[in-house]
Amino acid sequence: MLVPLILAASFFIFDGCSRKGASDKIIRTEVPARPAGQTDMLQFAADPINDVGIGVVGLGMRGGDAVERLTFVPGCHVAAVCDVESDRVDASMKYLSSKGLSANPYGGQEESYKALCEDPDVDLVYICTDWLHHVPVALYAMEHGKHVAIEVPSAATLEDCWNLINTSERTRKHCMILENCCYDFFELQMLAFSQAGLFGEVIHAEGSYLHNLDEFWDYYWGNWRLDYNSKVRGDVYATHGFGPVCQVLNIHRGDRLKTLVSMDTDSFNGKKHVSDRTGQPCEEFANGDETMTMIRTEKGKSILIEHDVMTPRPYSRMYQLVGTEGYASKYPVEQVLLRPSSAPEGIPDHENLNAHRPMTQSQVDELSARYPNPILTPDLVNLAKEVGGHGGMDFIMDYRLVYCLNNGLPLDMDVYDLAEWCCIASLSALSMDNGCVPVEVPDFTRGAWDRIKGFSYAFAK
Amino acid sequence: MLVPLILAASFFIFDGCSRKGASDKIIRTEVPARPAGQTDMLQFAADPINDVGIGVVGLGMRGGDAVERLTFVPGCHVAAVCDVESDRVDASMKYLSSKGLSANPYGGQEESYKALCEDPDVDLVYICTDWLHHVPVALYAMEHGKHVAIEVPSAATLEDCWNLINTSERTRKHCMILENCCYDFFELQMLAFSQAGLFGEVIHAEGSYLHNLDEFWDYYWGNWRLDYNSKVRGDVYATHGFGPVCQVLNIHRGDRLKTLVSMDTDSFNGKKHVSDRTGQPCEEFANGDETMTMIRTEKGKSILIEHDVMTPRPYSRMYQLVGTEGYASKYPVEQVLLRPSSAPEGIPDHENLNAHRPMTQSQVDELSARYPNPILTPDLVNLAKEVGGHGGMDFIMDYRLVYCLNNGLPLDMDVYDLAEWCCIASLSALSMDNGCVPVEVPDFTRGAWDRIKGFSYAFAK
Repeated sequence: MLVPLILAASFFIFDGCSRKGASDKIIRTEVPARPAGQTDMLQFAADPINDVGIGVVGLGMRGGDAVERLTFVPGCHVAAVCDVESDRVDASMKYLSSKGLSANPYGGQEESYKALCEDPDVDLVYICTDWLHHVPVALYAMEHGKHVAIEVPSAATLEDCWNLINTSERTRKHCMILENCCYDFFELQMLAFSQAGLFGEVIHAEGSYLHNLDEFWDYYWGNWRLDYNSKVRGDVYATHGFGPVCQVLNIHRGDRLKTLVSMDTDSFNGKKHVSDRTGQPCEEFANGDETMTMIRTEKGKSILIEHDVMTPRPYSRMYQLVGTEGYASKYPVEQVLLRPSSAPEGIPDHENLNAHRPMTQSQVDELSARYPNPILTPDLVNLAKEVGGHGGMDFIMDYRLVYCLNNGLPLDMDVYDLAEWCCIASLSALSMDNGCVPVEVPDFTRGAWDRIKGFSYAFAK
Repeated sequence: MLVPLILAASFFIFDGCSRKGASDKIIRTEVPARPAGQTDMLQFAADPINDVGIGVVGLGMRGGDAVERLTFVPGCHVAAVCDVESDRVDASMKYLSSKGLSANPYGGQEESYKALCEDPDVDLVYICTDWLHHVPVALYAMEHGKHVAIEVPSAATLEDCWNLINTSERTRKHCMILENCCYDFFELQMLAFSQAGLFGEVIHAEGSYLHNLDEFWDYYWGNWRLDYNSKVRGDVYATHGFGPVCQVLNIHRGDRLKTLVSMDTDSFNGKKHVSDRTGQPCEEFANGDETMTMIRTEKGKSILIEHDVMTPRPYSRMYQLVGTEGYASKYPVEQVLLRPSSAPEGIPDHENLNAHRPMTQSQVDELSARYPNPILTPDLVNLAKEVGGHGGMDFIMDYRLVYCLNNGLPLDMDVYDLAEWCCIASLSALSMDNGCVPVEVPDFTRGAWDRIKGFSYAFAK
């Protein structure tokens, strides 16, 4: 008789917490007070820039492609290029020359980017360096009057996030994360379906970076990526999976991230990568082979993010939307499902709709034609497919960035998106280093997360 | 300058916890001391029973099918049937009679099961009642000298788990969870691949119960299932997804579940189901529409489990194995992937193996022939397909249960599997009611989780 009483008592000792996770066991990080004299950057629009001069810093895997791609984007030109390695600068200049174009070259030293950031021909600094240089280059650029766009992951620590936010707010310069996965065709289409209410209310979403990097580690300058993973625990590369679903969930546009908990495996293959390269046993490798992060929002929604770059498996960003009236997921096969009773009228084969079975491709195509994503004009779609580069999403991202700068419009992604999508790295480590405890996600807008009512794209009149 | 210092300090205040999650923030539940005079049931084998007399209690959706199915299983007979509703007893008796069989009928009252449990013709009580009667019937049966097999979820609370364990240990009667999903063909095959080392070391696994129950709620006697979900928070139905991966991960056979954290959404559709039925607004519905649970093991592996019975979506048990040398997943399409350098010799099209792309079906078939699951003898496979019932997995489960009882062998699933797979329900609620904090998973074997070296099936000599 005593056993049941003891067990019952142990439940009640900890009872009483609300659904919203009010708990004294949660870790809260410091939210620095907004410095006097600056205001937030929500829906910030700069003066129009007729022909955006872009300075590309970092000409490796991503930067080299970016220079090429930007020459196809209307409304801008590559004004300057920079890399710590001179032969990469030469290669980009040669490419530009072959197209009858030219740019101001900078490079050969780690600090060469500073001169590019001071170049009056440059309006926007487009940053594709190794991760550790993302923030220093961005801060310097904004301090010298330039807008910045930063490859992912744009910021590694909370300190990075707050520095970028404070500098953007103070200098009134855009600071955008170059999250191309928000512009992949399925993600754009599902965002449109979601905004049209086809899924009802989206209550859960998933995203991930599941990509075996075995063949890639050796391509990074100075082994910086494997080195980084060996020293840093946590989901260091969350944004490709996380960004698109945050847009669907209207994060800091009506809802906000509230509570985060993470869990990882030990390092198995990570250690093996190091020992294979050094010939010595590897005792310590910080990044677990697989990391999971769960997040709960203010409105009672949930998000799951996963990270695994170490094991052999099919590529997956795990894009999934779970709604009260419908469902969508992308990997390994695209699936869209709507509850028949709430699906729009006039879908072909409406009588064959089923709440357990995905729609046919022709049904999805019909709905896509009826509910298009507004940024996908026919001209843009054709131009994007010509240019290539991840099948178009990189180009669409660049196109929208330049379009908004040309027209003096708010960008699709603001500095608070950057902070929200990147803070997963440090918050996941904080959770796990403390035994997988809940961590409060800071309100990077400092009080304005509910001002904008829902995600939208800006367009010129 | 102060901001960075404050942020840095906030990290170090909480630093210092090991990877294994040593934390004073974890919730620990009471592990009752093993009563004097009893020992554990690991690899317990009863005396052989030539022709197992089975008493089926509960003749609804699962129990009615079970009576039919058991008449096809060699080495047993249906000795007794029981249901609180007499017409269900009549229906089963009629079915048996149509096959020239008969059984002892019990029923018409809630306590009718007691007489069945006292029936000397019954060796095994097969329990398919509503969830709330699972444990009372099982305890009564074991106290009266019967082995028990319990439909899922077999136990709801930790108290239930410990009572079943203590009673099984004291009475020396089998207490098995009727987890049929361990016997589905893909799961059986992947377990065989895993045991053959084809995936290397499996470091992460996933399972779920994602099944829209819209059309089912009204079929449950007295609305017990929707009622249960409205009152109970947590993953109340984890075992279909969790059981099979626990077998792959050798839980309490070399590894053990250690730390659990859960997170749910609010109730959206759950509330709507109740308000639709009552015509009144529903303010409180305990079970979130989607619940996630993360578990870390002693050996540094991780498991993800999900639960959603409320939203329109394709059925999925999310079966996924992530290994250092390979990968497998089942929904929405079966995928098996092996690292080419560690794949076995002689696979057809070996040169086309790819660490990013699943194998072809013919490659999987070739490997399946080479590494069969030992319980799948050709006779059993053919017999199972004839009988039907979930395509065979129910029959294979019953066949193995009876085979092991006939031959005096340990069952495939022991009472500690039952406790581990079912404790998710109460531990997930405990985690979430305290703000998504980590919870320690008890060692239900009380010290013997590492005695058996790996999962295996028992066979007669």
